[in-house]
Amino acid sequence: MSLDALAVALRARLRPDQVLTDRQQLRTYECDGLAHYRVIPGIVVLPRTAEECAFTVRACAAAGVPFVARGSGTGLSGGALPHAEGALIVTSQLRSIIEVAPHDERAVVEPGVINLEVSRAAGPHGYYYAPDPSSQQICSIGGNVAENSGGAHCLKYGFTTNHVTGAQIVTPDGELVRLGGRAPDAPGYDLLGAFVGSEGTLGIATEVTVRLVRLPETVRTLLAAFRGTDEAGAATSAIIAAGVVPAAVEMMDALAIEAAEAAVHCGYPEGAGAVLIVELDGPAAEVAAQFEAVEEFCRASGAFEIRIAADDAERALFWKGRKSAFAAVGRISPDYIVQDGVIPRTALPQVLTRIGELAAEHGVRVANVFHAGDGNLHPLVLFDEAVAGQAERAETVSGAILDICVEHGGSITGEHGVGVDKAKHLPRMYSEDDLDTMQLVRCAFDPRGLANPGKVFPTPRLCGEVPGRRKGPHPLQEAGVAEVF
Amino acid sequence: MSLDALAVALRARLRPDQVLTDRQQLRTYECDGLAHYRVIPGIVVLPRTAEECAFTVRACAAAGVPFVARGSGTGLSGGALPHAEGALIVTSQLRSIIEVAPHDERAVVEPGVINLEVSRAAGPHGYYYAPDPSSQQICSIGGNVAENSGGAHCLKYGFTTNHVTGAQIVTPDGELVRLGGRAPDAPGYDLLGAFVGSEGTLGIATEVTVRLVRLPETVRTLLAAFRGTDEAGAATSAIIAAGVVPAAVEMMDALAIEAAEAAVHCGYPEGAGAVLIVELDGPAAEVAAQFEAVEEFCRASGAFEIRIAADDAERALFWKGRKSAFAAVGRISPDYIVQDGVIPRTALPQVLTRIGELAAEHGVRVANVFHAGDGNLHPLVLFDEAVAGQAERAETVSGAILDICVEHGGSITGEHGVGVDKAKHLPRMYSEDDLDTMQLVRCAFDPRGLANPGKVFPTPRLCGEVPGRRKGPHPLQEAGVAEVF
Repeated sequence: MSLDALAVALRARLRPDQVLTDRQQLRTYECDGLAHYRVIPGIVVLPRTAEECAFTVRACAAAGVPFVARGSGTGLSGGALPHAEGALIVTSQLRSIIEVAPHDERAVVEPGVINLEVSRAAGPHGYYYAPDPSSQQICSIGGNVAENSGGAHCLKYGFTTNHVTGAQIVTPDGELVRLGGRAPDAPGYDLLGAFVGSEGTLGIATEVTVRLVRLPETVRTLLAAFRGTDEAGAATSAIIAAGVVPAAVEMMDALAIEAAEAAVHCGYPEGAGAVLIVELDGPAAEVAAQFEAVEEFCRASGAFEIRIAADDAERALFWKGRKSAFAAVGRISPDYIVQDGVIPRTALPQVLTRIGELAAEHGVRVANVFHAGDGNLHPLVLFDEAVAGQAERAETVSGAILDICVEHGGSITGEHGVGVDKAKHLPRMYSEDDLDTMQLVRCAFDPRGLANPGKVFPTPRLCGEVPGRRKGPHPLQEAGVAEVF
Repeated sequence: MSLDALAVALRARLRPDQVLTDRQQLRTYECDGLAHYRVIPGIVVLPRTAEECAFTVRACAAAGVPFVARGSGTGLSGGALPHAEGALIVTSQLRSIIEVAPHDERAVVEPGVINLEVSRAAGPHGYYYAPDPSSQQICSIGGNVAENSGGAHCLKYGFTTNHVTGAQIVTPDGELVRLGGRAPDAPGYDLLGAFVGSEGTLGIATEVTVRLVRLPETVRTLLAAFRGTDEAGAATSAIIAAGVVPAAVEMMDALAIEAAEAAVHCGYPEGAGAVLIVELDGPAAEVAAQFEAVEEFCRASGAFEIRIAADDAERALFWKGRKSAFAAVGRISPDYIVQDGVIPRTALPQVLTRIGELAAEHGVRVANVFHAGDGNLHPLVLFDEAVAGQAERAETVSGAILDICVEHGGSITGEHGVGVDKAKHLPRMYSEDDLDTMQLVRCAFDPRGLANPGKVFPTPRLCGEVPGRRKGPHPLQEAGVAEVF
């Protein structure tokens, strides 16, 4: 009923092809990049302007219909999973690059703009947009903002939150509000910081101001082959401990290499138990000096072959294996789970050993492809849905990996977000008090809980249910005094 | 009455010398670094542990007494100005460095720890704490977190918010909660980001986890003298446009140089209408190459003398003039206002010209000392309280400078915070809707408005008064439809 009313309200202002209710059309949107959760949305809306987006949210608010925002739908935590009784607001039509201002080192873009397009627009001015998720050819800035996306080069350049200085957003009651601006730091609360990475639960970005980074003078890339991940991990630690900050340090283990070879024939050194891709960028003089040091650390840690990319084509080949690794795993296993956890870099050897033992105990295979430089693991847990019990065992191993990350002082997600997939894991990191505090902020923005419900937080609650924060004895009782007030 | 009750409650648990009510003792705390606002606090509390701090806040909550947190009291926006009917909670006794973990590039400290002490503790391990307010020898980490403090080297390294990865805080109802952690980015809302820079209105930090940065291999510093600020500004733009990111680019104009000479005899080149201090740090090879380029840019922009620091002693001398500049202005003027605004670097020449015109129009002198590299101005508006009308004229000029900053796409504060001083200016940057959104977050943490009331926000309001955010016509009316729901 309320969905029907919503459709009427929306169609009164939007074009027919902006409001989809046909089940065949709706099915196109049933999942994002995490395809094992599927929900057909109640209605799909495709606004073309910020005002249309705000109007859509106001219409949802008036109808009491929950809404989920979606960019390109490449997310890996199910953050854009639709709501069966809700509206899916797709921002892909908001795709203008509004301004490129190289002198201010800023660009202003709409949320549907593809990540790589920002760099393409800035390139002729000598700039680019630094955060580079593997999906950067298709993922959108709006989705990047929602999930605070990372990428291989975030080791040196930081995550999306470090590159967004301002945004116009639609709040869950449909107001257009500006957060931040062009300056690196605005007065008042850093609500922009809270918004970036809030996974659509605090509103929808309709315009984003991003930092542009100067294109480096030089980029140099090497690929080092080791007998095993321990040696590759030691090389990583040595590089970082020496104060070198590479643009990227990526590791793949034997199983990941096998998958990549099968899929894209990247020709990595034979017999490698682990490869490390190390990329340095910056002024030529700095890169030259540090590159030698990196080579030396790799050799000293046991690299048996080091290849240095002679040109852009060879660099692209090194990266091809790495960037295709997730999809490539499909070549060696019918099904797999992509896990995303973070550990302190120093714990790499212990954690990889524990993951190996865990896999052996449960009889599943785990391929490791990850951002070694910042300890952001992406274990791929392989299984075959057709074999009874394997999916469950894979789930068990995948969850246990997160426990290992947390035990080692890490985090349950590095760059994929919590979404629907990890909401249940959030209490592994946060106490009830911590979660209550986050919930208070959510309720401030969205008292009716209409913005992307069921994501991020483990237990859906009405805002009235968030406990008054005061617990425990009265301070006078604590102090042993009977009565004063 | 409630203050008396609070004193009883506190004394039941804390030592006598931790709860001050004697008016003579209270007067010591009547202002922070912005001495032209003075209020004697109702009561002063000096907790020694996080638990005592939480207990104190709970006691304030129970008694309905507002509270203000204070570190070393060096802030320049009156953020730690006491409340006459409230408690001043001084964190200077919480001064343990809990842990220095160089391998994880982290240190864990209590809020009363002095900024420079963190670097002293990390130094033997080859690390330091990067944000460096001019007051770093006396200001505390807790205060830095509250105000999101900057410093000369924030051009390259970022502000406090970029260097805090976790905190334990006392919420305004007295709960101890953890935000963030050791990982560079934690899942869930970035409440830590919202907390850093919230100027004591969301709670009090009782433990802070900060990033440590590797000590650079080399530091090189030059001082370039120009005929005027236009030339020095052009040099700054040329350096940044070339993709060089110096650790610091600081500018002083003729009047600021005059003051510094009078106070510390720093011996800057005679006849300089502006000096630029440019510092580069990093790997020796990079610094050497870029240093040459910087020299060349200075010369090409009209520098008539360039001095290169031969050793640490000479570098210290360059910086002595700059770091003493604020206080030094006292030598040439009985009174002055330190302003703090931000503009896009490209607008430097126009803005400095406008400030000069403004000063001439109102018959006051303005000295400029600032972080040129990131466009963070610190105009010092000189006046003599004893001369009728001068203080008012200085206030007018000081306020008008902020208008100029905002007109040029900048901000009303770069690093000193809003505090009590700039609360009235916040509407120059934010619409009512924007301010309402911040207020909602404040109310989520502090529904009774007891945490540092009267700071940051222009109009004190009860949380019940923050309007329901829904305004304007119903979406169906907007769309021209009469009735559906």
